[in-house]
Amino acid sequence: MDISHIEHLGIAVKSIADSLPYYENVLGLKCYNIEEVADQKVKTAFFKVGQTKIELLEPTSEDSTIAKFIEKRGEGVHHVAFAVKDVAASLAEAESKGVQLIDKAPRGGAEGLNIAFLHPKSTKGVLTELCCN
Amino acid sequence: MDISHIEHLGIAVKSIADSLPYYENVLGLKCYNIEEVADQKVKTAFFKVGQTKIELLEPTSEDSTIAKFIEKRGEGVHHVAFAVKDVAASLAEAESKGVQLIDKAPRGGAEGLNIAFLHPKSTKGVLTELCCN
Repeated sequence: MDISHIEHLGIAVKSIADSLPYYENVLGLKCYNIEEVADQKVKTAFFKVGQTKIELLEPTSEDSTIAKFIEKRGEGVHHVAFAVKDVAASLAEAESKGVQLIDKAPRGGAEGLNIAFLHPKSTKGVLTELCCN
Repeated sequence: MDISHIEHLGIAVKSIADSLPYYENVLGLKCYNIEEVADQKVKTAFFKVGQTKIELLEPTSEDSTIAKFIEKRGEGVHHVAFAVKDVAASLAEAESKGVQLIDKAPRGGAEGLNIAFLHPKSTKGVLTELCCN
């Protein structure tokens, strides 16, 4: 798998509005985009930190997977997204090596990326996203 | 606070030996260093992904904070470390803005870094490390 860098970290928060003061005023990062991803039932806020983005994920519905994550584990890092050259090829390679896939094929994510998730049961507990532009 | 990039992600694993095949053979990353940090009761394994390192953390004792983390939450992302120019100054700034500190002063971490942790109660659930060379 040809990973160039960590594209983003997905961080589950109860409220983007309540989280912005920490990210902007304490860490000194600048939120450059807030976007709703309807099919994932989340609102997202993006910050750039070097090569990597921080993507805050606020549930927009109680049955959002992010709402369930927060209910079970509290706010915190939800997933790690690696930038790859070709998501479909990387998925096929991962599956051939025994990794359980959440997405069998790439789908559209925030910021127009092609994305797919690997199951944390196969990735030593880290919900892992592969993505490319 | 002057953050340049995400220096590393700390990921708690039960066993580095059991995790290496996933990181090396599936993700295609190369472990370049394995090091024990005695005062944190962990063994660490490092991989480079673009600007950021992945630091696997394996507990070397049952009373390691990493052992307790895994017992409570399972394997997964343990902390996010931001590279700053000056850890002591960044700590002082964070504290002045109401952030609860775990470390009141920088201390030595793996790879010879100066490090300090902010408390996840003040950082929207993400155990946050500040570090510099």
